[in-house]
Amino acid sequence: MAEKDIPYKIHLTEGEMPEAWYNVRADMKTDHRPILHPGTLQPVTEDDLRPVFCDELVKQELNDKDRFIEIPGPVRDFYRMYRPSPVVRAYFLEKELKTPAKIYYKYEGGNTSGSHKLNSAIAQAYYAQAQGLKGVTTETGAGQWGTALSMACGYFGLDCKVFMVKVSAEQKPYRKAVMETYGASVTPSPSETTQVGRQILADDPNTTGSLGCAISEAVEAAVTAEGYRYVLGSVLNQVLIHQSIVGLEAKAALEKYGEYPDVIIGCAGGGSNLGGLMAPFMADKLAGRASPRFIAVEPASCPSLTRGRFAYDFCDTGKVTPLAKMYTLGSSFIPASNHAGGLRYHGMSPILSQLYHDGYLDEARAVGQISVFEAAKLFARVEGLLPAPESAHAIRVAIDEALKCRESGESRTILFGLTGTGYFDLAAYMQYNSGVMEDYIPTDEDLKRGLNALPALPGVE
Amino acid sequence: MAEKDIPYKIHLTEGEMPEAWYNVRADMKTDHRPILHPGTLQPVTEDDLRPVFCDELVKQELNDKDRFIEIPGPVRDFYRMYRPSPVVRAYFLEKELKTPAKIYYKYEGGNTSGSHKLNSAIAQAYYAQAQGLKGVTTETGAGQWGTALSMACGYFGLDCKVFMVKVSAEQKPYRKAVMETYGASVTPSPSETTQVGRQILADDPNTTGSLGCAISEAVEAAVTAEGYRYVLGSVLNQVLIHQSIVGLEAKAALEKYGEYPDVIIGCAGGGSNLGGLMAPFMADKLAGRASPRFIAVEPASCPSLTRGRFAYDFCDTGKVTPLAKMYTLGSSFIPASNHAGGLRYHGMSPILSQLYHDGYLDEARAVGQISVFEAAKLFARVEGLLPAPESAHAIRVAIDEALKCRESGESRTILFGLTGTGYFDLAAYMQYNSGVMEDYIPTDEDLKRGLNALPALPGVE
Repeated sequence: MAEKDIPYKIHLTEGEMPEAWYNVRADMKTDHRPILHPGTLQPVTEDDLRPVFCDELVKQELNDKDRFIEIPGPVRDFYRMYRPSPVVRAYFLEKELKTPAKIYYKYEGGNTSGSHKLNSAIAQAYYAQAQGLKGVTTETGAGQWGTALSMACGYFGLDCKVFMVKVSAEQKPYRKAVMETYGASVTPSPSETTQVGRQILADDPNTTGSLGCAISEAVEAAVTAEGYRYVLGSVLNQVLIHQSIVGLEAKAALEKYGEYPDVIIGCAGGGSNLGGLMAPFMADKLAGRASPRFIAVEPASCPSLTRGRFAYDFCDTGKVTPLAKMYTLGSSFIPASNHAGGLRYHGMSPILSQLYHDGYLDEARAVGQISVFEAAKLFARVEGLLPAPESAHAIRVAIDEALKCRESGESRTILFGLTGTGYFDLAAYMQYNSGVMEDYIPTDEDLKRGLNALPALPGVE
Repeated sequence: MAEKDIPYKIHLTEGEMPEAWYNVRADMKTDHRPILHPGTLQPVTEDDLRPVFCDELVKQELNDKDRFIEIPGPVRDFYRMYRPSPVVRAYFLEKELKTPAKIYYKYEGGNTSGSHKLNSAIAQAYYAQAQGLKGVTTETGAGQWGTALSMACGYFGLDCKVFMVKVSAEQKPYRKAVMETYGASVTPSPSETTQVGRQILADDPNTTGSLGCAISEAVEAAVTAEGYRYVLGSVLNQVLIHQSIVGLEAKAALEKYGEYPDVIIGCAGGGSNLGGLMAPFMADKLAGRASPRFIAVEPASCPSLTRGRFAYDFCDTGKVTPLAKMYTLGSSFIPASNHAGGLRYHGMSPILSQLYHDGYLDEARAVGQISVFEAAKLFARVEGLLPAPESAHAIRVAIDEALKCRESGESRTILFGLTGTGYFDLAAYMQYNSGVMEDYIPTDEDLKRGLNALPALPGVE
């Protein structure tokens, strides 16, 4: 070991776990663009959102004033089962790369959901139970969010209806099995169980589904049933609030050893992982206390930040949700079949989008999946953890940054988010191992279709 | 939380990780029965074993003198990637069961191999590399050991040839994919690649394989290739030495909070998990310093301890290995297809067998798989971790013991081994969820065939 004083894994004690989430919106130097009602195109009110989300989560969604939001006791108790999660010094990866860079990763895969998604799932399930609801509905793509929500609902005794992107449900029967083990019902989407699902199927009977479709179905299922609300695992402001615990813990753990990252890297699909990881560091940057460099990594097959437009758009394919100002490829964009399933969303968290637009999120980088799996396999061999394909996007760029340091001789401190494990993604690894994996990069023509169909909003900027 | 002072997870620091393994044989009050050469039926010498095992491991296998064996530096470095593993207080399970018992579990599933097997795999791979070997061969059943060994060999740059029980290779293609991701070659067993495999196939072309068959093939593959040795993930004395780190850490973690278990529970297939977990506590019992109660839990479908015979037997089906004195169902016994794959071995660790025979291991209990999955599902829901079916055998009995405490009002401290996660066992969970799982309990007639075929050894007791 190069430095005996910094352990391989930095564990905070349970007593050191944050007692409040951090809401970066309170510190952002911007006029927050309101979410717009899909019918009136006016800014949504709490009343508009209450049929869709739990009351407390409606408040969190619209809250741009309170810097900190207390984590409820029952959520803190649940967190103690798997948190604080460790910050790991990737000594073996550094050695393999012969880099002078110090590489750290915040590891969120050490719970049965296999990812960071549980951080928000348990919070959302708690608020639903506290409000006396019967259950919640949601969508899931790769299955991490659905698994997390199933666990959370099983724990609080809530009914859980998951709409799972059809292609994922077929490719990942075991993901479905985990959710069912926790008591959830799983419906492949689009389905005949909702009006919007039937419409999508009528338009394209052979569709393999998308997150956008599944969201439309889940929202409809929630608002048409008594005692149900809709919950979402990424994109929303409330989710980024909950995920701030990732960054808060990471910052506290690094501070114990006098470390502060120069570069912070996260994969970005809907944006909740990177949004959570970077939150307290972004607070420093917004306040001028530090200037870490932030890099969002997205798949070349679904390049919302790098090739999308910063515009108002629907959050779903069926256009039943409100519109948010975000980087988007258009709500009708359905990415090519790509095993990094969790990053296949047409849009991006409005918070991340705004920060990127304003230059605080320094860079977005799109990477092809072959290079992502190459990084994943190297990481697995030297660091012992089999990463989820989503997480491996961040690994790819962390490795690239570390290799730059080898060339320049600079010793930089890199922090990236290892959001989850790849136990349910072995079909993708098999594809890579056998050499038949392909990169899919949409042409400008491919993207035009979605971008040209963005809603025209006269008078709205 | 009932007791705020005891955290949910007790983490030792990396500096508190044991620097030596414990060898319980040095403290056992018995004349150790020697391992016998399969040809001469004489006690094996170091020379006999050296073509099969690495030199250092031969010494460990025969060592009944040294109480402690230093953990080599490179192995300690690797351990730091995933150790010390936590001891978890199952507060939520206690609450669910309304029991006055305190339930702790030592969690070994937090690494990519998903189980405790990595503790011995990395040690065995290290000794092979240090001896300048090209590679190792092994067998795997459920796949945990093969995965662990693949990781260890990938790390040390050794070739790794895994013979995987045919039925498991077919049922678990993703397990195979993980091993291949780490660079191992995986051959379904029995195979045409070895003489013993061809013989077994000739006798029964439709066999689904067994651990005993796969061991025969792996041993042959090792001794017939230059620069290869055979490694085994359980049963052997050397493996129990390596696994003692589990118990040493558990004891140190509990001592931090003034806790000492009244009951120690582990699942037992080959015996390495329970052997490792109980080692330092057994030292106390052998020395009269404490008297914890030990319970070995085995599947009703493969009941070596509860319905087998304490006798000399071959460790494999093909009778190419030495004979050990152990509880066995006969080396020709092939258990019914049972998803708790890792516990399907006809024999049992000679150390555990002797301790059971001498009454230090207090009890063996056989449980049916339906009740095991019932316990697994309850545990998953309240404790958030999806256990491997093997581990769930220990959970079943821990729950039963805790329920007894509820009836008696006694507050006992229970420690069990949670050896691994169930991410690769979802087919079994699906079977349980759909209500079609069956228990399989062999009849006395079924068992007679294997027991009657035990080798007759005139003059050997």
